[in-house]
Amino acid sequence: MENRGRNRKEILAKLRLILGNDAKYEDGKILCSMCTKPRPIAEIAHQMFLCSNLGDSGLFPGSRRLEQEVVRKLADLLNGKSKAGFIVSGGTEANLLALLAARDWLDVSNPEVVLPESAHFSFDKICNLLKLKPVWAELDNTFRAVPESVERCITDRTVAIVGTAGTAELGAVDPIRGLSEVALAHGIHLHVDAALGGLVIPFLKYAERDALEFDFRLGGVKSITVDPHKMGMSTVPAGGILFRKRAFLDHIKTETPYLSDETQYTFVGTRSAASVAATWAVFESLGREGFTKTVGRCMALTRLLAKNIETLNLKLVVQPTLNIVAFRTSNSKETAEILQKRGWFISYVPRLDCLRIVIMPHLRRQHVQTFLADLSKMIQ
Amino acid sequence: MENRGRNRKEILAKLRLILGNDAKYEDGKILCSMCTKPRPIAEIAHQMFLCSNLGDSGLFPGSRRLEQEVVRKLADLLNGKSKAGFIVSGGTEANLLALLAARDWLDVSNPEVVLPESAHFSFDKICNLLKLKPVWAELDNTFRAVPESVERCITDRTVAIVGTAGTAELGAVDPIRGLSEVALAHGIHLHVDAALGGLVIPFLKYAERDALEFDFRLGGVKSITVDPHKMGMSTVPAGGILFRKRAFLDHIKTETPYLSDETQYTFVGTRSAASVAATWAVFESLGREGFTKTVGRCMALTRLLAKNIETLNLKLVVQPTLNIVAFRTSNSKETAEILQKRGWFISYVPRLDCLRIVIMPHLRRQHVQTFLADLSKMIQ
Repeated sequence: MENRGRNRKEILAKLRLILGNDAKYEDGKILCSMCTKPRPIAEIAHQMFLCSNLGDSGLFPGSRRLEQEVVRKLADLLNGKSKAGFIVSGGTEANLLALLAARDWLDVSNPEVVLPESAHFSFDKICNLLKLKPVWAELDNTFRAVPESVERCITDRTVAIVGTAGTAELGAVDPIRGLSEVALAHGIHLHVDAALGGLVIPFLKYAERDALEFDFRLGGVKSITVDPHKMGMSTVPAGGILFRKRAFLDHIKTETPYLSDETQYTFVGTRSAASVAATWAVFESLGREGFTKTVGRCMALTRLLAKNIETLNLKLVVQPTLNIVAFRTSNSKETAEILQKRGWFISYVPRLDCLRIVIMPHLRRQHVQTFLADLSKMIQ
Repeated sequence: MENRGRNRKEILAKLRLILGNDAKYEDGKILCSMCTKPRPIAEIAHQMFLCSNLGDSGLFPGSRRLEQEVVRKLADLLNGKSKAGFIVSGGTEANLLALLAARDWLDVSNPEVVLPESAHFSFDKICNLLKLKPVWAELDNTFRAVPESVERCITDRTVAIVGTAGTAELGAVDPIRGLSEVALAHGIHLHVDAALGGLVIPFLKYAERDALEFDFRLGGVKSITVDPHKMGMSTVPAGGILFRKRAFLDHIKTETPYLSDETQYTFVGTRSAASVAATWAVFESLGREGFTKTVGRCMALTRLLAKNIETLNLKLVVQPTLNIVAFRTSNSKETAEILQKRGWFISYVPRLDCLRIVIMPHLRRQHVQTFLADLSKMIQ
């Protein structure tokens, strides 16, 4: 740190310069993120609640109420009856709280968790933290979990099964009904990681939605991760964790010795209400109609992109279920590198040797068309 | 969620109403928080970088550079030579990363960690998560760790010792030099939780600072938590974790399959650069001179408050070292409740049966005087 401070004008000029090196969602070049530009009202609400701390919520009862409302709205959307849940730092903390509750609920020695191979990499972190042994279950040829394979992985040390509603790499939705039946039969926790899909699937057309059952209507589903800072178009950090029943909270509880709240359930202590207010504002601003429109637009663009990629004689890894398109070229890694050099932020997924595009709300039809034109030139 | 969205004006009016229920730092009634009103420049910088995601930093190289600069500035301040560190969600995640590195570095079965009884409650969460057995060491009559007591707790399963530079309840600073010697003698990790003190002690007068050695100059100190969202006057979430050497990072590393970065070290995945930019802006704006002035003002108010409390014939739990005052009345719990009813946000600490006040930068002399007047009336 310098001895003397600098003036505000200099500091802001320097910050603007530095910010100039960051990509911007609105430029339409970010094709690889599950985050997006927050809605304008989210940014305003965020700034309003920047100083309110939900980790000491006795001081900030207005913010506490907002969090409870957001949790209730999310639970309603996912057909949950309980209001037990929190808006946390993101999907990783949400998944952590679910597996912590599951581990401590059953309390077996050398606990294991059954994970389909497509589970998010945050579960690697979490298993390492929690000393949970991950047992990997196979996928079918559409990259979805196979309930029979999951069931074969279960031992008397299994404390939980994880299913994903919208895998990070392909947007695949596991057969949660089948996993729920397995979980119920064995009396273990099914956690659904719907970080992405939880705010997409409820807004799909009826027929599509019905084929993708994933929520609390399925009795085995004990907890769901659903992230407002992804398709909820809220600000970061806003991950959601919902529990089927309040009793799970006893297993993630810590006593606090000097705060205005006597207990704390989240992993993170001090946490701003800013993104909770932002989430609330987006929900109020869009309503189901607004979300349905945005999701519809993303899905239409996804189908457009997928169809055009096939027209270029490139192979889709799988037909898109949600707003992710994955495809291969004759040399996918090289194609990705060339596209990246041309300014496109696109993922290359080594495990699947494919390129991956996430169609988030910041992407417009012309962005997709420009990308397709570039891709088309490259592969000819 | 409602079907139809509401208009912006209605939403903002409702949010303002809700925010009216939250306490405001600037009202001078919050006497119990280790957070404070961020500096105005922090709020501006926060908003500027709201959309940049350090969890996918290949897209946001400007923000990545800002984080590295903030870590370097913090390391310099704490006399560290390495730049291995991160700005994370807060002290809890910072402490988690330190103990995870320590646990996996030594990799013994049934690992233990030695914690002085004054260690922060986040270590309860962390020990539960990491399946680390906490072994509690006694404090002396000034509520500081006793190196001999800590040493007696060490077994061949001990992976780390924790020391605190600024305990949350009393602001006590453990004898870190003594703990460092114990750690070196036994070849185990000493983690210093300086979440509060790390941005206070370096700005104290020389004599006071010299009596409170706690940083990387002591060879046993392998990691330090220091939170910009406390005395750094930055926005939440900004916790800092610094490691003595880069090699520790190998033990907190996760591979990422689809992001622009191949590895991730923090627990949280997606994380906004907003509070990193805010922290950078405060450091640039204040410099050491500005921090010295703010810390000086807080410490002067702390001494004023402590002296006046003694003048009222109330007993301090301990003479303040940092900006926390703890005291007892004939019925401390009842006094706290009455003060709370009168609008003062003040802590009652059951374990120590005392009241607790943290003098943060949002508090002015007149706030302290008003409080003293109220307290004085009450106890007469």
